[in-house]
Amino acid sequence: MNGLMMQQPLLISNLLKHAERHHGEREIVSRRAEGDLHRTSYAELAVRARRLANAIEAHGIGFGDRVATLAWNGYRHLELYYAVSGSGAVLHTLNPRLHPDQLTWIIEHAEDRMLCFDLSFLPLVEAIATRLPTVKAFVLMTDRAHMPAASKVPNLICYEELIESHEPTYEWPVFDENTASSLCYTSGTTGNPKGALYSHRSTLLHSFAAALPDALNCSAQDVILPVVPMFHVNAWGLPYVACLVGAKLVFPGPALDGKSLHDLFEAEGVTVSAGVPTVWQGLLSHVEAHGLAFSTMRRTIIGGAACPPAMLSSFQDRHDVHVIHAWGMTELSPLGTVCVLKPHQRSLTPQDRSALQAKQGRVVFGVDMKVVGPNGDALPHDGKTSGDLLVRGPWVISSYFKGEGGDPCINGWFHTGDVATIDADGFMQITDRSKDVIKSGGEWISSIDIENIAMAHPAVAMAACIAAHHSKWDERPLLVVSTRPGASATREQLLSFFEGRVAKWWIPDDVVFVDAIPLGATGKIQKNRLRDRFKLHRLPTDGP
Amino acid sequence: MNGLMMQQPLLISNLLKHAERHHGEREIVSRRAEGDLHRTSYAELAVRARRLANAIEAHGIGFGDRVATLAWNGYRHLELYYAVSGSGAVLHTLNPRLHPDQLTWIIEHAEDRMLCFDLSFLPLVEAIATRLPTVKAFVLMTDRAHMPAASKVPNLICYEELIESHEPTYEWPVFDENTASSLCYTSGTTGNPKGALYSHRSTLLHSFAAALPDALNCSAQDVILPVVPMFHVNAWGLPYVACLVGAKLVFPGPALDGKSLHDLFEAEGVTVSAGVPTVWQGLLSHVEAHGLAFSTMRRTIIGGAACPPAMLSSFQDRHDVHVIHAWGMTELSPLGTVCVLKPHQRSLTPQDRSALQAKQGRVVFGVDMKVVGPNGDALPHDGKTSGDLLVRGPWVISSYFKGEGGDPCINGWFHTGDVATIDADGFMQITDRSKDVIKSGGEWISSIDIENIAMAHPAVAMAACIAAHHSKWDERPLLVVSTRPGASATREQLLSFFEGRVAKWWIPDDVVFVDAIPLGATGKIQKNRLRDRFKLHRLPTDGP
Repeated sequence: MNGLMMQQPLLISNLLKHAERHHGEREIVSRRAEGDLHRTSYAELAVRARRLANAIEAHGIGFGDRVATLAWNGYRHLELYYAVSGSGAVLHTLNPRLHPDQLTWIIEHAEDRMLCFDLSFLPLVEAIATRLPTVKAFVLMTDRAHMPAASKVPNLICYEELIESHEPTYEWPVFDENTASSLCYTSGTTGNPKGALYSHRSTLLHSFAAALPDALNCSAQDVILPVVPMFHVNAWGLPYVACLVGAKLVFPGPALDGKSLHDLFEAEGVTVSAGVPTVWQGLLSHVEAHGLAFSTMRRTIIGGAACPPAMLSSFQDRHDVHVIHAWGMTELSPLGTVCVLKPHQRSLTPQDRSALQAKQGRVVFGVDMKVVGPNGDALPHDGKTSGDLLVRGPWVISSYFKGEGGDPCINGWFHTGDVATIDADGFMQITDRSKDVIKSGGEWISSIDIENIAMAHPAVAMAACIAAHHSKWDERPLLVVSTRPGASATREQLLSFFEGRVAKWWIPDDVVFVDAIPLGATGKIQKNRLRDRFKLHRLPTDGP
Repeated sequence: MNGLMMQQPLLISNLLKHAERHHGEREIVSRRAEGDLHRTSYAELAVRARRLANAIEAHGIGFGDRVATLAWNGYRHLELYYAVSGSGAVLHTLNPRLHPDQLTWIIEHAEDRMLCFDLSFLPLVEAIATRLPTVKAFVLMTDRAHMPAASKVPNLICYEELIESHEPTYEWPVFDENTASSLCYTSGTTGNPKGALYSHRSTLLHSFAAALPDALNCSAQDVILPVVPMFHVNAWGLPYVACLVGAKLVFPGPALDGKSLHDLFEAEGVTVSAGVPTVWQGLLSHVEAHGLAFSTMRRTIIGGAACPPAMLSSFQDRHDVHVIHAWGMTELSPLGTVCVLKPHQRSLTPQDRSALQAKQGRVVFGVDMKVVGPNGDALPHDGKTSGDLLVRGPWVISSYFKGEGGDPCINGWFHTGDVATIDADGFMQITDRSKDVIKSGGEWISSIDIENIAMAHPAVAMAACIAAHHSKWDERPLLVVSTRPGASATREQLLSFFEGRVAKWWIPDDVVFVDAIPLGATGKIQKNRLRDRFKLHRLPTDGP
């Protein structure tokens, strides 16, 4: 027997309709690729999204067709989020930091029919346009005044002209909530990139969960600045959450340097931001170098990579900005866990509290997780036993787009590829990526723990720990370090820094200095490149 | 094309599994019908709910069968919430304040197969047991020590024995999320009671929405005491929300007097509570008479009836307890709107802010609303034009159980029977029930506005305003008043109290004093009884 409740599918267009009807006056502020600051509102967003929906349909984009974007965080990108998914097409956000060959491969694999891109990416698109047979329409996300006089891109369409030439009346179609809404590729370190194909249902449920008080805690009071790109797992869902709660949105465009971000935070009264540690590093350096403060920012969500303890302390202790450490993946839409303390943990000593906040946190309702051993058996939640982290939930993928890479799930659980512990309070801590873990004499050493300690050394700008071959122990840790400008440290100074901070046998066997640690398109350290580079490195501890 | 996300139905059992796995140690404290205070945890709740699920299945309760409860707020009632719905049966919460004839009618109409009840209701059940042919099992929610030596109830089962005699292992079944989960009857002032049949999906979506920062704002930090009964629209969803966020739950049992509640608030560190104005009146009287304070309570959710401005001011100005005015209905699961201010409203003068907080508030995402005129056309959101309030959303009913009372929806919108305004910020204010509105010379007078002013008079304990016949104006307002113990006021004093507080033509034409205003089973004023009683009342303003 079914309940007798209204059957309303969970659709992304509902978010926009809600924001227009009930938060129409709330602002959306964008620093544009053109350089200026632009102000609009949810009411205007809704009107322009409807015009855009008419426009893309007029260009032959049908139900399920993919529309790609190469764009920074801004109001036009937001209009595409709602117009494309709302009309039943699929929004495919491309990561512009990928190599052009990878982009070409992904666009063809996704069979994108339309490509919309910011001014900054005109040279990139000009370079690859002829290699994109599936793309029937190229749209430059700017106004007539900024259109190039001539371009190598065939039939280049001006976004603002496209919008203006279509009517603002459009009825958002109602369809099955399991319909695909958006597509985001994740580039593993091996193999081809794989696409996560989200649905309207998964996106809406994720939005509810992300806005909860113990998750990102978003309300109409908030002024949200997503530093995390809209091409990176839908900016962690914030463009949807903002409509759901009626928060003001502030978009930084391409200007992600410390000064630009801090200026925008202060000018627009930003209360909450979200991004990866590498961006916060730049922001904190700027703020500290100029003796600045955060006058409205209350909290920042840090994810994408583990937040170094030194960064956590800097935000909280020196700047009174609460850090919310979070963990997720492209395959999780992305939210999995958030490190929000439980009541009995409020009375911890500052040191224990910091240690706890360094964990990735507890699941939000909807997601379940467990750690398992090599034979698949669940391991205890004791905060010590680490194993493969498995997750499941209605916003976790069941397979990749077009079935690439085989089945990522076993018995209904998605294999994250992370190695983690879970403590008795349900707080998960990533100890490593399963492929990064260092196996010394059959025991595991966490490369992340080693890196976090190294990063706390004043001379270290960035550190990566990888496994080096050892004839007795099989693998031993090798620390790769880039130093801060003007600072220096010797191999011996760095190694002695570990003493007392970690078990003796976890201390790296050697240190090598590099000019720069290689970062991938999403700001993560590319350990596979380091492993390649140092695969013949001979450890001094490995006997003659 | 569908997204490639895990297909997991939204089931009530997921809430319990989440609370057990991730908030197992969090407490559930109950004042029992037996008189003592009982402490348990989510971990134990989950074990006992599994035993109970085995038990009810062993008693022949199958998928879709109704299990009725006649119980106060307490841990056993909570176990039934999860065991009954979780196993695929339907939890039917009965309102014990209804007349026994009404209860008998409802139980038979719902075809309840099992009836579980608190000790307090043994006499009631003994009186009606022989008139309940559908009920195959009667369960007294107590332990062996409190079982009566003999009872007129046939084959009376002891709840604790039932639990103990079944295994704690039980796999919660997975089924379609649209499956009926629970049933709650609403007794209109005319006609037979009608049942709202909720689904697992509607309950889970309602739980997400209710926990949001701009709704009830519930987190693991909270200690929630639902004063609103679990037999009244699922205690506004709080038993589900608490599991979703891992909040501590405190149940008051049958002791709803001011002293018992205040003692429990203080002893258990309650941070948030929820209930109807009539209960808060008793609590505030106690607190003020004894010069007490609220040391942990941060906010209270007031709904079920409009919160009188005097009560709002008392909580906020004298006791520093923030009032969240909310509006809902049994047909809305119940949450529709919550009065949480928008940022630009924070700078209002205290007076304007109080006026705004007296409104029922803005919709939470999921619900949409509009006001329409007699011809069904949408009316402007100007805060002045009042019309019939219509709502829709995934936790709004589409029809009543067994189709009783015809179709409550027109074009997909549920007709609330309320008359309301919506202002430009989306804040809705109920001006009346459509059947309570007073139509004077073709113009509407809000009975609620008149009552709120009367309630602010120091001598008035409770006030109701109804329409009395007038030969010239058709209807004119008649004020019915009960005075506080030891206080008195004359007709003329009360009428002059309205001067300057309301348009002259809204001032009542007469006042009558009664010993007590009749209240219904859910604490609402029974205006139909007053209208019957005073239907021949002759207004002094109606010429000779």
